[in-house]
Amino acid sequence: MKTEIINRINALRVFLAQGNVQAVIIPQTDPHQSEYIAAHWEVRRFLSGFTGSAGTLVVTADKALLWTDSRYFIQAAAQLQDTGIELMKEGLPGTPDIIDYLIKVLPKGSRVGFDGWLFSVDSAARIAAQLEKHGLEAVTDFDPVDAIWPERPLLPQAPIFVHDIKYAGESASDKIAKILAKAKEEGADAVFISALDEIAWTLNIRSRDVKCNPVATAYLLLSPQGSTLLTDPAKVDDITRAYLNDNGVKVEPYATIADFLAALPADAKVLAQPDKTSHAAGKILGGRLVKAGSPVPMLKACKNDIQVSGTRAAMERDGVAMVRALMEIERGLKAGEKMTEITISDLLTDLRSKQDLYFDNSFDTIAGFRDHGAIVHYTATEATDVELQPDGLLLIDSGAQYLDGTTDITRTISLGNPTDLQRHDFTLVMKGHIALGSMIFPAGTTGHQLDAIARQFLWQEGLSYLHGTGHGVGHFLNVHEGPQSIRLNHVPTPLTPGMITSNEPGLYREGVHGIRCENLVLTVPAMTTEFGEFLRFETLTLCPFDRSLFDTSLMTDEEIAWVNAYHAEVRERLTPMLTADEAAWLAVATAPLRR
Amino acid sequence: MKTEIINRINALRVFLAQGNVQAVIIPQTDPHQSEYIAAHWEVRRFLSGFTGSAGTLVVTADKALLWTDSRYFIQAAAQLQDTGIELMKEGLPGTPDIIDYLIKVLPKGSRVGFDGWLFSVDSAARIAAQLEKHGLEAVTDFDPVDAIWPERPLLPQAPIFVHDIKYAGESASDKIAKILAKAKEEGADAVFISALDEIAWTLNIRSRDVKCNPVATAYLLLSPQGSTLLTDPAKVDDITRAYLNDNGVKVEPYATIADFLAALPADAKVLAQPDKTSHAAGKILGGRLVKAGSPVPMLKACKNDIQVSGTRAAMERDGVAMVRALMEIERGLKAGEKMTEITISDLLTDLRSKQDLYFDNSFDTIAGFRDHGAIVHYTATEATDVELQPDGLLLIDSGAQYLDGTTDITRTISLGNPTDLQRHDFTLVMKGHIALGSMIFPAGTTGHQLDAIARQFLWQEGLSYLHGTGHGVGHFLNVHEGPQSIRLNHVPTPLTPGMITSNEPGLYREGVHGIRCENLVLTVPAMTTEFGEFLRFETLTLCPFDRSLFDTSLMTDEEIAWVNAYHAEVRERLTPMLTADEAAWLAVATAPLRR
Repeated sequence: MKTEIINRINALRVFLAQGNVQAVIIPQTDPHQSEYIAAHWEVRRFLSGFTGSAGTLVVTADKALLWTDSRYFIQAAAQLQDTGIELMKEGLPGTPDIIDYLIKVLPKGSRVGFDGWLFSVDSAARIAAQLEKHGLEAVTDFDPVDAIWPERPLLPQAPIFVHDIKYAGESASDKIAKILAKAKEEGADAVFISALDEIAWTLNIRSRDVKCNPVATAYLLLSPQGSTLLTDPAKVDDITRAYLNDNGVKVEPYATIADFLAALPADAKVLAQPDKTSHAAGKILGGRLVKAGSPVPMLKACKNDIQVSGTRAAMERDGVAMVRALMEIERGLKAGEKMTEITISDLLTDLRSKQDLYFDNSFDTIAGFRDHGAIVHYTATEATDVELQPDGLLLIDSGAQYLDGTTDITRTISLGNPTDLQRHDFTLVMKGHIALGSMIFPAGTTGHQLDAIARQFLWQEGLSYLHGTGHGVGHFLNVHEGPQSIRLNHVPTPLTPGMITSNEPGLYREGVHGIRCENLVLTVPAMTTEFGEFLRFETLTLCPFDRSLFDTSLMTDEEIAWVNAYHAEVRERLTPMLTADEAAWLAVATAPLRR
Repeated sequence: MKTEIINRINALRVFLAQGNVQAVIIPQTDPHQSEYIAAHWEVRRFLSGFTGSAGTLVVTADKALLWTDSRYFIQAAAQLQDTGIELMKEGLPGTPDIIDYLIKVLPKGSRVGFDGWLFSVDSAARIAAQLEKHGLEAVTDFDPVDAIWPERPLLPQAPIFVHDIKYAGESASDKIAKILAKAKEEGADAVFISALDEIAWTLNIRSRDVKCNPVATAYLLLSPQGSTLLTDPAKVDDITRAYLNDNGVKVEPYATIADFLAALPADAKVLAQPDKTSHAAGKILGGRLVKAGSPVPMLKACKNDIQVSGTRAAMERDGVAMVRALMEIERGLKAGEKMTEITISDLLTDLRSKQDLYFDNSFDTIAGFRDHGAIVHYTATEATDVELQPDGLLLIDSGAQYLDGTTDITRTISLGNPTDLQRHDFTLVMKGHIALGSMIFPAGTTGHQLDAIARQFLWQEGLSYLHGTGHGVGHFLNVHEGPQSIRLNHVPTPLTPGMITSNEPGLYREGVHGIRCENLVLTVPAMTTEFGEFLRFETLTLCPFDRSLFDTSLMTDEEIAWVNAYHAEVRERLTPMLTADEAAWLAVATAPLRR
């Protein structure tokens, strides 16, 4: 492998020399600015051998460097060994950012190349301006990858299918009309969409192009004169084609995107969101580009009644799978059977896949035992997998794509003999989870404003967690979606009725244990008073928290009542779907907490 | 008065016609973007007769309109009656903003005039761009005011004096060196400061140019080659001139600002903050202007140890004045003496002015009885003043400028027979005050992130208040200062050790009562753990809260303990400064709350 990587980097350098380009930047994304990408776009991985989900490769005539964040320092160091690629640890004080580094090492007049399809309008403009300011030039159409990657995987070819309106709740033509009306307010007569989940939502189509993300690789142009979906025609069968046609959408080949955009009328006004549209597409649109926020994320985030009912139903089935998994872990441990982190992951996939309307997992399961639980983005591999012992905390973060909704749940359970520290930490995390879950707040409030509500009990003891408290969740769509979030960083989108967001505070003691407690919550109206409209959260996720980990001496009466009411609801809604044995287990797992 | 206003508007219209200007915008500010302004700058008030502290006048050939916010709807309607000036209620759904209005009513090609010294670089650019987009032109040097206001008050002429380093804690030359070093990081070799409090802080000078704000009207240019203070030379006596000279600062006349800026070297790089520097000054600086945040607000906000000790001492004296006022109100009411809102205001000024190092009030006292307390920016006038009765809530928000610190305190007291609703509302407000005051939070946290901590108990019952929870407070300087704040709007400045900020949640039931509980708090280090550095608040203000208004059945043990600990500290620190009678009163007022 090491020699292969060295050869690949050297092959790339040949193209650098040929193109008179002194450095190339290879990011980890696709032309749709996706968080998760298909194999075809795993260029950075191919060239560097580093398999992490975040990282950027930079190659110059004499150096190759990989920037990645703290989640991947250890993994990257191992995978880059002997490849000649230097690890640049993002976020450490001594590490320059990529552009600052290039400005420092390259002589004035040097050219920095990248593939303009893989950088957004915004980020390419930022990079080009920064380089120019220091006498360097950006070359935004440098893409020699096909030539040095003969065995490059094809673009995804999974069939596209229609997401039935009985699940989606609103027709594609109604959505298109809404989007175009919003675009008109921005002075645009058409909308160009690159984000795959926005396309899937708009047209009520799904596919299997990206693992765990039921999207189709495509571009979409909406226009009152008729819309166009640019995708591999082989992905579109007659039924789907007829359906699209009925909604005023014709299909053109994905590969023709550049020609298609170039052929748009010179006076067209095409709205495209500059941080979600590639530089290359933006350049072709030129003066026709209306830079504005896409109306889709907000429309998509606010689920309709049918999506909400579907999600509630999916939560019941997902809760049944979770209860069965928790029972099985307890049984296996008692029976002394060998179980590992990977066993747990497989068990969950197996139990979920037996549920009605299951389509896929919504992300790779995180099952972290003891200190592995403290590695926030841990996924067990053959190399790291450990056997569970009847002692210690197990953090399980998992979820599924059902046709009627997407789930994402984290439970942290004790496999035996919970310690005072475990119970203390778990209870503080739960106090934050409960405080956030119980909040009533004025319409217009953002998740950023509520984030400290979930963190306050940890902060009070000098503890904290660095990830977000909540992310938006799609409907049979990406498990991470915007525009809302609940986090330390400011995001201006208010929490709005119909939004589904996670509530997942945590605490990670390095080398000891990790705790996270996650339910999905729906924003719903609470009351209207002389002071205005107030909203609250309805908890959607249905699965008990581990009763053995609560330290009720740290809890208020209201907090204990919250847990008991939640557990009563879990019991009531899941019991009818369980066998007698399972129902008996659940009754014990959801028995009221007492002081 | 009405005829006068009509005549003034008509006089203005003559200049509109002469200048071929179709509309003029007259704001309420000065060339320093001040919140409070000297009489010389009260142009909007002179032209409209409206005396409120916020509002903008727009005059066209056939219309005159005044935009103001909800605080002033009633007052403005009364003052504008029969003047021909139309009231535009800001914030109501039907009210366009000024520029949108002008775009709608003016024919294409029209010219909109304003005085470029009264609009910041940012706001003038925004207005000009908006107008231009719709075929209108901005005329940024339209200022006929002197001609139509012969009796216009002179510029303020109070003497400038030195704020002794025994109070300021850091020399002007040290501050100048720090500011210039920060400016260098932004690529600037000089700094132009227009904000009056920034100038006062930088040079350790004070004056009486603006009521309650101990600032001098001036501009300041800092440069390694020597600095210049542009102010009325008559304000600078020999001692002050020598002091400035010792700090490398020479004095030039205020009125020469335009020539002074024009004469700066062509290659000078002058940092000026574009939202605090006037358009006119920015235009003269031209290519020499380095638009960047001024380093002064952050340096000024983080008080040094001497400022902090001074503020603690000022708080003790201010607490003594407050205790005496509260006793006097109680005594007067019992004795059946006539007391009104204005009596209370005068009483507080009298008691404070007897304290050492008193200089001025820090703002006009708000004393609002019963329903007047619900008017957030209420100041009693002869017309509104009411007599206090031994029944109902009295809200008192007041503060002073002492040479060693600035105070700002609000107490809400019951004059007798507190009702359940009063105690309920007061207790919810105090729960928020206590929760915020007790927070421990990671370094880097903003006030915006903590704001909901103070509001949560109100929100939970569908209650709320629309003002900020906390503003920065100067040191013997403006009672409102940035850059930090604790509020619903996002402000990115973190709460940093040394900052003094108010903690003032409230609740206002229109026509019933108003409640606000305000202490000033100092940000201080709390602890450093493996999760980083954590901060907390030290309460600076020393004065009891009204014990009769607490409903302990709504409070946790921790909240009751917080009140008791705070009251114990108030008692310990104020008692040595009180007479025996006063000490006895305070002992009762600070006796522990019990369930």
